[in-house]
Amino acid sequence: MQNYSLLTDLYQLTMAYGYWKTGLKDHETVFHLFFRKHPFQGGYTLACGLQPALDLIRHFSFKEDDLAYLSTLKGNDGKPLFDSGFLEYLGKLENTLTVYGIPEGTVVFPHEPLLRLQGPIILCQLLETPLLNILNFQTLIATKASRIAHVAQGESVLEFGLRRAQGVDGGLAASRAAYIGGCAATSNVLAGKMYGIPVRGTHAHSWVMSFPTEQEAFEAYAQAMPNNCVFLVDTYDTLEGVKNAIGVGKKLREEGHEMVGIRLDSGDLATLSIEARKLLDEAGFPAANIVASNDLDEYEMKTLKEKGSRINVWGVGTRLVTAYDQPALGGVYKLAAIRKPGENWSYKVKLSEQAIKVSNPGILQVRRFRTNNHYTGDIIFHEEWEPARCRFEAFSGQQMDIQADHYEDLLVPVWENGKQVYHSPDIHTIREHRKKSLELFEEKILTPSEPSVYPTGLEPRLQEYKLELMRTVH
Amino acid sequence: MQNYSLLTDLYQLTMAYGYWKTGLKDHETVFHLFFRKHPFQGGYTLACGLQPALDLIRHFSFKEDDLAYLSTLKGNDGKPLFDSGFLEYLGKLENTLTVYGIPEGTVVFPHEPLLRLQGPIILCQLLETPLLNILNFQTLIATKASRIAHVAQGESVLEFGLRRAQGVDGGLAASRAAYIGGCAATSNVLAGKMYGIPVRGTHAHSWVMSFPTEQEAFEAYAQAMPNNCVFLVDTYDTLEGVKNAIGVGKKLREEGHEMVGIRLDSGDLATLSIEARKLLDEAGFPAANIVASNDLDEYEMKTLKEKGSRINVWGVGTRLVTAYDQPALGGVYKLAAIRKPGENWSYKVKLSEQAIKVSNPGILQVRRFRTNNHYTGDIIFHEEWEPARCRFEAFSGQQMDIQADHYEDLLVPVWENGKQVYHSPDIHTIREHRKKSLELFEEKILTPSEPSVYPTGLEPRLQEYKLELMRTVH
Repeated sequence: MQNYSLLTDLYQLTMAYGYWKTGLKDHETVFHLFFRKHPFQGGYTLACGLQPALDLIRHFSFKEDDLAYLSTLKGNDGKPLFDSGFLEYLGKLENTLTVYGIPEGTVVFPHEPLLRLQGPIILCQLLETPLLNILNFQTLIATKASRIAHVAQGESVLEFGLRRAQGVDGGLAASRAAYIGGCAATSNVLAGKMYGIPVRGTHAHSWVMSFPTEQEAFEAYAQAMPNNCVFLVDTYDTLEGVKNAIGVGKKLREEGHEMVGIRLDSGDLATLSIEARKLLDEAGFPAANIVASNDLDEYEMKTLKEKGSRINVWGVGTRLVTAYDQPALGGVYKLAAIRKPGENWSYKVKLSEQAIKVSNPGILQVRRFRTNNHYTGDIIFHEEWEPARCRFEAFSGQQMDIQADHYEDLLVPVWENGKQVYHSPDIHTIREHRKKSLELFEEKILTPSEPSVYPTGLEPRLQEYKLELMRTVH
Repeated sequence: MQNYSLLTDLYQLTMAYGYWKTGLKDHETVFHLFFRKHPFQGGYTLACGLQPALDLIRHFSFKEDDLAYLSTLKGNDGKPLFDSGFLEYLGKLENTLTVYGIPEGTVVFPHEPLLRLQGPIILCQLLETPLLNILNFQTLIATKASRIAHVAQGESVLEFGLRRAQGVDGGLAASRAAYIGGCAATSNVLAGKMYGIPVRGTHAHSWVMSFPTEQEAFEAYAQAMPNNCVFLVDTYDTLEGVKNAIGVGKKLREEGHEMVGIRLDSGDLATLSIEARKLLDEAGFPAANIVASNDLDEYEMKTLKEKGSRINVWGVGTRLVTAYDQPALGGVYKLAAIRKPGENWSYKVKLSEQAIKVSNPGILQVRRFRTNNHYTGDIIFHEEWEPARCRFEAFSGQQMDIQADHYEDLLVPVWENGKQVYHSPDIHTIREHRKKSLELFEEKILTPSEPSVYPTGLEPRLQEYKLELMRTVH
């Protein structure tokens, strides 16, 4: 991993300077990273990005050239922004953080901290921007992929988005998050190498156009790579293309190979897939896949399924990797507690005219309750006030009781006093965790359109304390 | 720059294998990279990404570990996808390309090639995906920034988007493109270091919340960094905040420093900025800036201006760096010519049911005509058929003549037979080039809402040839 210590907003550094200069630098703080609203008007969100966030923290340190660059920055009087003493201090900054996080692939809800940092205010602030960058984006894409996989109902979804992704890492991180969110494979070879994700790909229109006829193109491809044949059939005429694929598929079979399938990339995908299925079945290729691509997402796929399409492998690109209908998750990172070394915590709320934007004070944990076969609700609580029972105050203001006979706490320690204590499972295990995490939620929460609201809220003592604090600040 | 030779779709490699295996690998091809529609329903697009694209080409080579990874990939029979002979060949692949490109910061229109690659089919194909990734995204963001800067009418626009950007490079590349597109500075410190972009930043709400009162917070900040004071005034009560800022501004002035301004980040920005301006002016701070942020984009800024807002520095984040209302540019990369070594070119079109999606054959160049004071139209032509005069066939099918007394050809040679012949100007020069490029277009083309259509089309012989070719393929 590259050194990303400067991958932050300048104001984190000017504030760090201020904390250093005014003697507040060793004040201990607690910050929570959370979002306020599910993306895509959905009913759930899938946490993603913890491992890259931990990598970032592990590699966080200012190098000579970073400090040299900072020393060139000037204020409005033309004088340096930063004292050399401060830069020297930055160069020696050590990670003494205690961090809790929600494992990747876990279903999460608004206001639940995905990450909780405790440590010196300077370090917590410097990390705000890159942590938000990583978790906002990967959580967004994992959630999008999960919605798409939900509509695919167990059929394979392939992520094809690199060419339209937002930059290099917009592609790589999206491939990673999409796999965790439920995609079966990616077209992105570097993501395959870096993250161990399965990769898929066969040929494009340009392959077909490089030969005098489509049939010759398919034959040449089959000869070159008989064990990886998905023929793209829509360069000239789609159903003629299917027939050409069948012809080549038969020859392949004679040579002991099996055609994997065909791909449709334009036109009326529902009708074409039905026709193609018929042709393939009649010709003795009932196992050949029908892959489709072309601006697909969960909405389009739902429509295609309703039309009786026979597509059984879904290639999704742009609309997945850019989260086209909502390209950013509005995750935030808020101060919740501060204390001088050795003193008691002072808890903080950030006020707002909008109730939903008022942050929660305390050192927070999330408890998820369940009965035997499904989750029934989540309670956000302050560490010192462990919920006695499954009662909470919903964000609507009502107190509610939830049925439950088990619970689990979602935030796990990942870093303790500067030592990493959690090591991320491999990406396949994370993907499995997502599956299990989802299985215990009711379908009405998971459906992409007009989902039900899952019960979540604050533990009553925390809610009371928060209101009191809001009155005091006013 | 990292080694990005695997940053491509797997099908580029399986096709490369096919070309190698079937003996087509040394066929020479011409590919064009272009888009079909302006983003954001705008009237123009700003080309961006040439320099990073050239960097990518320069560093393109397969390393040992890339080849080792590729050797692990399997087909559906469990056998390796690629022969070791092919991997050996890849390891020795040399760049023999000739590339033409449109310099960054140039205004461009649909169907105009931003990049034209000529060289062995394998190399041209392998580069398709990463080139699209880079140019699609940077062109998208530069265009968005240019629209925002247009509405700002010369007032500063600061890019604050890193925390909500799509991954690390989604942030870095966006900062670069936003600066080229007209932003004055970024909050992204690493982008500042990497690209030489000015950086800006002061403090966040968390700074204010770390002190007992807002006034103490402002005073502490002013003491620490008197030459960089923009006070964020909306943590508790915005206008009280402005008064606190004025109080601290006066003390600063006594000490020989000048407050840079205040920042509004919530509430009714129009009204608050008017009130804040009044307070600042009355207190003797007519030069203090009023910075505003909070989900701004060209549409919101236009509304604020119409409401008489007194904001004069615009902080834009999420909606700029993710191009929120259209998060992907649909750039494509199409084969336009192919020949066996030593033979004549065979020109290609890619058919589609939609006329706009049929690609253009030939080896293309773009000629931009102008009268003394403004550009009058662009003609896309095949190198061998240089336009005799300023007549073209519009995509609507009509032949048009355009008035002109000068012209320039937009595509310049950047790589010749494997040698880089173009070296990108520095980022500030690129940004200036954008400004000059825009000045010669009429306002009605540049306006973000309901712009007029700038005249562009194909040179008539090319158009005729394209139709003939389409008939032949059918």
